[in-house]
Amino acid sequence: MSKVAVIMGSTSDLPVMQDAVAILKGFDIEVDVDIVSAHRTPEKLFEFGKNAHKNGYSVIIAGAGGAAHLPGMVASLSPLPVIGVPVKSSNSIDGWDSVLSILQMPGGVPVATVALNGAKNAGILAAQIIGSSDKCVRDKVEVYKEGLKQKVIAGAKEVQTKK
Amino acid sequence: MSKVAVIMGSTSDLPVMQDAVAILKGFDIEVDVDIVSAHRTPEKLFEFGKNAHKNGYSVIIAGAGGAAHLPGMVASLSPLPVIGVPVKSSNSIDGWDSVLSILQMPGGVPVATVALNGAKNAGILAAQIIGSSDKCVRDKVEVYKEGLKQKVIAGAKEVQTKK
Amino acid sequence: MSKVAVIMGSTSDLPVMQDAVAILKGFDIEVDVDIVSAHRTPEKLFEFGKNAHKNGYSVIIAGAGGAAHLPGMVASLSPLPVIGVPVKSSNSIDGWDSVLSILQMPGGVPVATVALNGAKNAGILAAQIIGSSDKCVRDKVEVYKEGLKQKVIAGAKEVQTKK
Amino acid sequence: MSKVAVIMGSTSDLPVMQDAVAILKGFDIEVDVDIVSAHRTPEKLFEFGKNAHKNGYSVIIAGAGGAAHLPGMVASLSPLPVIGVPVKSSNSIDGWDSVLSILQMPGGVPVATVALNGAKNAGILAAQIIGSSDKCVRDKVEVYKEGLKQKVIAGAKEVQTKK
Amino acid sequence: MSKVAVIMGSTSDLPVMQDAVAILKGFDIEVDVDIVSAHRTPEKLFEFGKNAHKNGYSVIIAGAGGAAHLPGMVASLSPLPVIGVPVKSSNSIDGWDSVLSILQMPGGVPVATVALNGAKNAGILAAQIIGSSDKCVRDKVEVYKEGLKQKVIAGAKEVQTKK
Amino acid sequence: MSKVAVIMGSTSDLPVMQDAVAILKGFDIEVDVDIVSAHRTPEKLFEFGKNAHKNGYSVIIAGAGGAAHLPGMVASLSPLPVIGVPVKSSNSIDGWDSVLSILQMPGGVPVATVALNGAKNAGILAAQIIGSSDKCVRDKVEVYKEGLKQKVIAGAKEVQTKK
Amino acid sequence: MSKVAVIMGSTSDLPVMQDAVAILKGFDIEVDVDIVSAHRTPEKLFEFGKNAHKNGYSVIIAGAGGAAHLPGMVASLSPLPVIGVPVKSSNSIDGWDSVLSILQMPGGVPVATVALNGAKNAGILAAQIIGSSDKCVRDKVEVYKEGLKQKVIAGAKEVQTKK
Amino acid sequence: MSKVAVIMGSTSDLPVMQDAVAILKGFDIEVDVDIVSAHRTPEKLFEFGKNAHKNGYSVIIAGAGGAAHLPGMVASLSPLPVIGVPVKSSNSIDGWDSVLSILQMPGGVPVATVALNGAKNAGILAAQIIGSSDKCVRDKVEVYKEGLKQKVIAGAKEVQTKK
Repeated sequence: MSKVAVIMGSTSDLPVMQDAVAILKGFDIEVDVDIVSAHRTPEKLFEFGKNAHKNGYSVIIAGAGGAAHLPGMVASLSPLPVIGVPVKSSNSIDGWDSVLSILQMPGGVPVATVALNGAKNAGILAAQIIGSSDKCVRDKVEVYKEGLKQKVIAGAKEVQTKK
Repeated sequence: MSKVAVIMGSTSDLPVMQDAVAILKGFDIEVDVDIVSAHRTPEKLFEFGKNAHKNGYSVIIAGAGGAAHLPGMVASLSPLPVIGVPVKSSNSIDGWDSVLSILQMPGGVPVATVALNGAKNAGILAAQIIGSSDKCVRDKVEVYKEGLKQKVIAGAKEVQTKK
Repeated sequence: MSKVAVIMGSTSDLPVMQDAVAILKGFDIEVDVDIVSAHRTPEKLFEFGKNAHKNGYSVIIAGAGGAAHLPGMVASLSPLPVIGVPVKSSNSIDGWDSVLSILQMPGGVPVATVALNGAKNAGILAAQIIGSSDKCVRDKVEVYKEGLKQKVIAGAKEVQTKK
Repeated sequence: MSKVAVIMGSTSDLPVMQDAVAILKGFDIEVDVDIVSAHRTPEKLFEFGKNAHKNGYSVIIAGAGGAAHLPGMVASLSPLPVIGVPVKSSNSIDGWDSVLSILQMPGGVPVATVALNGAKNAGILAAQIIGSSDKCVRDKVEVYKEGLKQKVIAGAKEVQTKK
Repeated sequence: MSKVAVIMGSTSDLPVMQDAVAILKGFDIEVDVDIVSAHRTPEKLFEFGKNAHKNGYSVIIAGAGGAAHLPGMVASLSPLPVIGVPVKSSNSIDGWDSVLSILQMPGGVPVATVALNGAKNAGILAAQIIGSSDKCVRDKVEVYKEGLKQKVIAGAKEVQTKK
Repeated sequence: MSKVAVIMGSTSDLPVMQDAVAILKGFDIEVDVDIVSAHRTPEKLFEFGKNAHKNGYSVIIAGAGGAAHLPGMVASLSPLPVIGVPVKSSNSIDGWDSVLSILQMPGGVPVATVALNGAKNAGILAAQIIGSSDKCVRDKVEVYKEGLKQKVIAGAKEVQTKK
Repeated sequence: MSKVAVIMGSTSDLPVMQDAVAILKGFDIEVDVDIVSAHRTPEKLFEFGKNAHKNGYSVIIAGAGGAAHLPGMVASLSPLPVIGVPVKSSNSIDGWDSVLSILQMPGGVPVATVALNGAKNAGILAAQIIGSSDKCVRDKVEVYKEGLKQKVIAGAKEVQTKK
Repeated sequence: MSKVAVIMGSTSDLPVMQDAVAILKGFDIEVDVDIVSAHRTPEKLFEFGKNAHKNGYSVIIAGAGGAAHLPGMVASLSPLPVIGVPVKSSNSIDGWDSVLSILQMPGGVPVATVALNGAKNAGILAAQIIGSSDKCVRDKVEVYKEGLKQKVIAGAKEVQTKK
């Protein structure tokens, strides 16, 4: 069965990255969480990146803020698809730093970047990647999206009534 | 076998998007190319998005410029993973418009965004997504990355010699 | 008589979009409010866009935040003039994402974009559009603008007195 | 019959603004073109703005670059809907100056802003505004949009064949 | 004797613009304060701009936020030097809109722009302009700058002691 | 009689700054040109700034690119009004660096900033500053502005005829 | 023994700049703190810059906000390596002004720029500069980095346990 | 004797980075040049970073474009001072990506960032770092700066003569 790794550069990223974990658990996808700092634990980064596919992961979600090198460096080390979550850290320049240092990867080493603080979408994207070969997970994604639709429709009714 | 759809908003995006096609063919992955304009052929967009997974695609790559709605709208309609390529069109405001209108999707509907004009990386990412469940494709990705490394090492030698 | 549709991507846009509704009601223009999410209820979006002019609307006001595709997609589906309101949502990158993804529409499919969170102006613009063929509404717009002027003049007097 | 005024701040804006004129003539809508500089001919600006609706115009299209005050000042003076076209002039800071000084109008005085250099869309938007009360013009807009669609479909066929 | 006009687009700009008034009063320079809205009281703007030099003003300070047209329009109407103060209004896009719509004036019509919310500096600049031909005022500017220096030196001493 | 100093950080700024010289000569205002590099000739900067008012200058125009410290440092050293011209140098980040490092001066030390590469406007502003106490120069400014107006009106006629 | 000067433009920068002092004291490196305002105490700036290397300093750390000229001007005056800390002051345009006016120095006069509000890193960088010729200090830097690593590893354990 | 390593992410960075090499050779400082790609040769990056100080380097200069991770990752691995050069690569978003992904390093791991394409300044900064403990190199830096000054003074003479 597929397993996803959710890593982040610092414990301060956890409140944001928790959304990815919650979504994946909601899809009954196994998920491991770890702190891997590209800048403070580079050996652990190498270890993790080099072995992620051997350790049974199908997808890696990596979140980081500021000059966010974690997603790109993991993508450099692993053949797995890597989803990058730009985290808006304190002292960030409005989030532009994390967005650009994750998104603008050079040719050859992609990172699948989601919106600023978009850990929830990172979780859904990981499920969609697994679902691209696992119909059971894809069905769950479809049910999830149907749920979103129903919530909007319910909200719409309330708004129309209020008028 | 896995199949990838490469769609774009306009024939003017083709020179950029061709890179995705070339990479996928290099990995022996079947690929279909089409023009689907969110703004000028919305019915085709709906048709395409609703049926992509039924038509045998595993991954969708969508490129567009300016207020680029194609990737996000396809992501809205399909349970498949969608990779978005921001294309720097003429009259673009330095590419920021396409980057932000693809990247900043709301919670629930992710687009896996790559760098501005990063169609090559979109192709590699699609291969990695397929490779996450297909060892044969993943091996090709690893061979490809090994090739990148060798090219850098060869370039390094030349630079060191020139000194 | 002319009727305006005010739609938005999420109930969280309502506090901003309410300003458009209030202005239109102040001009005695009939207005319907609905939630139509481009990304979560794409079928409703299609239904709405395709039929708005048949349902008696003269103008559509559409507000959305982040990668804001609602105004542009409605403009793609309807022959009516569409006014887009960029909403500054949480996790927005300072509002640039909604501004650019509404403003930078490709040739052929305009959206009449107003300022960030400028729902009030969207309402006035809708009245001006109706007023361009309905002298009675145009007169109300002129009265409204005269009111703005008087308020400024009153404020000016207070400032001059305080000196 | 409806008539549109296309004005701009300088003759150097004409190559961009010509697109609006061409579109309107294509829709058989009467159009007048003039140079009105907010900063160099403020009296003409006042004259024009105060009297546009008396002179039979239904819609005003105003284009300007840099610190672009023409659209907003005309909107201040006229009860008509004003469409603003940000023109990317030389010495512009990437077009941001014209975009922001047209778009970010204060509450009470809207300008219907289109994309950078988007004069073509300004023309279409003017037609849609006229079409909101003139079925004959709206039908032409629908025919125009059908034409856009057919061009995309033809382009798509070519791309699919080339494969 | 020289007299300065401090005008602003809205009473909401007063808390910022008050700094200019205070500085000028500190230099014993006569100052008049008024609200002149380019967009809501265009006639007053014209009246004011056309006659400012006849009314005895030497310098005009004009503050505004968002799409800030007041400073540039006054500069268009008056032969006097106009100092523009970009005010960071609510719903501003981080102040960029007011900065760019004041600073980026076309060739022929300068506005002497100061920093975002920099009304204090606008007051000093007005004094320097007056002082360029009035030695008494220039001496006061020199005394003021000497005062700034002494405050920094006092602060420095405190910091060095704390060590 | 009034005299203006036009200084710049590098000979490479001369093509831009020449516009200020030309305008001032056109107004028969005496002008001296010099290269004063804040970063490479700091002693000359000090000498110049400390003595400019003693050397008979009424206004200083200072142009620089990149991290442009010349205008602000001269303003720090001189009691005269200093006009800053942000020059778009090669390797500039789109001109933002020079604009912001000239405009955003701290409270107490204003620089009268004009548009990117706006040396022409710097010259006009200097004339306006001199004209605020010298009616003869102010009259020339009015004649100059009248000339601008006539040129626009001539251009407008041509455009209207072409129609 | 090596000594570092930590200077800043204003006492309001002290809360940010204190981080540099603390780091350096933690490495047992002698440090002097002073307020040197480029714009309000230019003579002190000259004095300081001209003599810093004679006064026994090895490295200068200079912090400033807004149009931040202090680091660049000190670099202009001193042969020592200068580390610049962009401080996000009130009224800053999101910190871009201080970042760009410190970073974008012209060829010939470098400033070693660190992140926005990154005084802590300025302290570490100063230690690394001293450590490049003083093995004892370099060893302390290595111990410090080992400490960072251990903290991350401890945080990682906590996260893994919580799961 | 001190030795500097100049590394870069790709041979395409060489034309920019060559400036650093030339400056260092001009100061008679030994310099090695190599290509080390963070994303394509991560093992070489690790090897290089871990051993740079053991291999006799005093300072590392690292240049890269786009999502530029090389300088930060080397800083993560080495106790030496690392100078980062943001290179404006093709497909860069105006250089912002490389600037921000080098500059905005998290607390604990500084990179001494210079201007966009500022390799020349990186070379000078490396010399200043070496010169902070090596009087002979510092003297050369002073001679170099004196040369810059003489060139400006010569240019100034030419400009004054031309007048």
